[in-house]
Amino acid sequence: MSFSQYLAEQQAIADGALDRVVPGEAQSPETIHKAMRYSLFAGGKRVRPILCMEACRTVGRRVEGVEFAAATLELIHTYSLIHDDLPALDNDDLRRGRPTNHVVFGEAMAILAGDSLLTLAFQVLAQLKGLDAAVRCALIEELSVAAGTVEGMIAGQVRDIEGEKAEPTAERLDAIHRAKTGALLRGSVRMGALYGGATDEELAALTTYGEAIGLAFQIVDDILDIEQSSEQLGKTAGKDAAQHKITFPVVYGLERSKAMAAEQLAKAHSSLEMFGERAARLRQLADKIVHRDA
Amino acid sequence: MSFSQYLAEQQAIADGALDRVVPGEAQSPETIHKAMRYSLFAGGKRVRPILCMEACRTVGRRVEGVEFAAATLELIHTYSLIHDDLPALDNDDLRRGRPTNHVVFGEAMAILAGDSLLTLAFQVLAQLKGLDAAVRCALIEELSVAAGTVEGMIAGQVRDIEGEKAEPTAERLDAIHRAKTGALLRGSVRMGALYGGATDEELAALTTYGEAIGLAFQIVDDILDIEQSSEQLGKTAGKDAAQHKITFPVVYGLERSKAMAAEQLAKAHSSLEMFGERAARLRQLADKIVHRDA
Repeated sequence: MSFSQYLAEQQAIADGALDRVVPGEAQSPETIHKAMRYSLFAGGKRVRPILCMEACRTVGRRVEGVEFAAATLELIHTYSLIHDDLPALDNDDLRRGRPTNHVVFGEAMAILAGDSLLTLAFQVLAQLKGLDAAVRCALIEELSVAAGTVEGMIAGQVRDIEGEKAEPTAERLDAIHRAKTGALLRGSVRMGALYGGATDEELAALTTYGEAIGLAFQIVDDILDIEQSSEQLGKTAGKDAAQHKITFPVVYGLERSKAMAAEQLAKAHSSLEMFGERAARLRQLADKIVHRDA
Repeated sequence: MSFSQYLAEQQAIADGALDRVVPGEAQSPETIHKAMRYSLFAGGKRVRPILCMEACRTVGRRVEGVEFAAATLELIHTYSLIHDDLPALDNDDLRRGRPTNHVVFGEAMAILAGDSLLTLAFQVLAQLKGLDAAVRCALIEELSVAAGTVEGMIAGQVRDIEGEKAEPTAERLDAIHRAKTGALLRGSVRMGALYGGATDEELAALTTYGEAIGLAFQIVDDILDIEQSSEQLGKTAGKDAAQHKITFPVVYGLERSKAMAAEQLAKAHSSLEMFGERAARLRQLADKIVHRDA
């Protein structure tokens, strides 16, 4: 199977799992379920669920049903996008080429839709069928820390907001990206590893992989915001500069930023050596993250 | 010990547990932890944690550490208050006699503080020490469903918002209150019962108790909004009528509403019969919920 066929197949698996775990649009109260589904099924690439599922298969001691655990990463990612786009935060009207949640459903419902996706993520993990309760708790711990305020996604969002008024230093940049995008991508890989029954050694190797691609993802994101148009990105381009965000190109320049992304890609590859051919798809996923154009 | 001494002691236990589970104000990024703590430690009565701890003791097979599970109910309750008070929702500037979170920290930080408390609740439950993982998962399931979109708190909030434009019928009122306030109060009692190792029969009895006091709580809340001043309530009085909310007095009138609260109190008492003297505090808590003045 070609890599693009593989990606399409994996997206379909993630979409199917999401459709199963989120209440239908006919479920009362209908508005909230419509709002949740509007942003969930808006053409997301499902990067986090796919990383989770593939990390799980690479370990491979338990695979069945991992798509439902993987789906919870997309619930968290989507909640963060809905809240990020709100007028009080990034005030963005466009996401994946469509009007953002609050533009369609109003601010009140967008706030509640984000809250709902966040809540549902933990419900789904707690209710995972056929999975040992200790593993379910480990997954919930992993996801909540990755999304949280100390070293997780919310820490990154807060630092990002506060960074708009601060001096763009390498240290500050590192603290922002590591939490904002890095924590959930790292968590995606680690949740897959935990689901798959990873040994300590395997978990450590996959954590290194997750951190490297998390960093690479953010560097490339910052570069694309400069080099691509809004049409190509499906979201507003050039926002980082307009909002005085601390980005890799601002701190290191474009060329050095590109070299750093390549370094992280090499690190991701070398972290996978112990898995041999079983990690072929994880290698391709790392390549895709660095060489993407949107 | 008098009941008021008992209440003060229980509030102190809940406060101590909250202080332990929430990162300190010095934890980076400081702003978010300050915002979380501002609303958490704003003089809340800790009704939900106290109900949880007391239901646990009434069952009594396991009690140690229940205050940390109980604290997660206050995390959820506080997140819902912060988001409810936002300009896009109830647009309230006053809560427990103090400026609301977004007035002090800005809307962006208030949205993130709510998200943070919600996320932290599940982290705390997943990490509960010395508790069987199956019980931790059961608590997470209970809390996420009670806070969720189908029969939980968010369902109630959505119905409440949409009810402002709808005909005030008994059926609609029931659907709102059962979810909006009822689900989390019911969940508080049930989480305590689950922590305490309840049998099916004990869990069923305490569920009936939780539903009765949940309903009574909301009826009294609606009555107080009419009969008390803003100073007495510590929040804006008379808002229900101003916002055309569907309330018990609107649907049933004041006198019938008071009779209904008394009926639910009687139901709460009779549900506790099997526990005898062990449920003395739960009976007093039910009395207090109905006979409170704020």
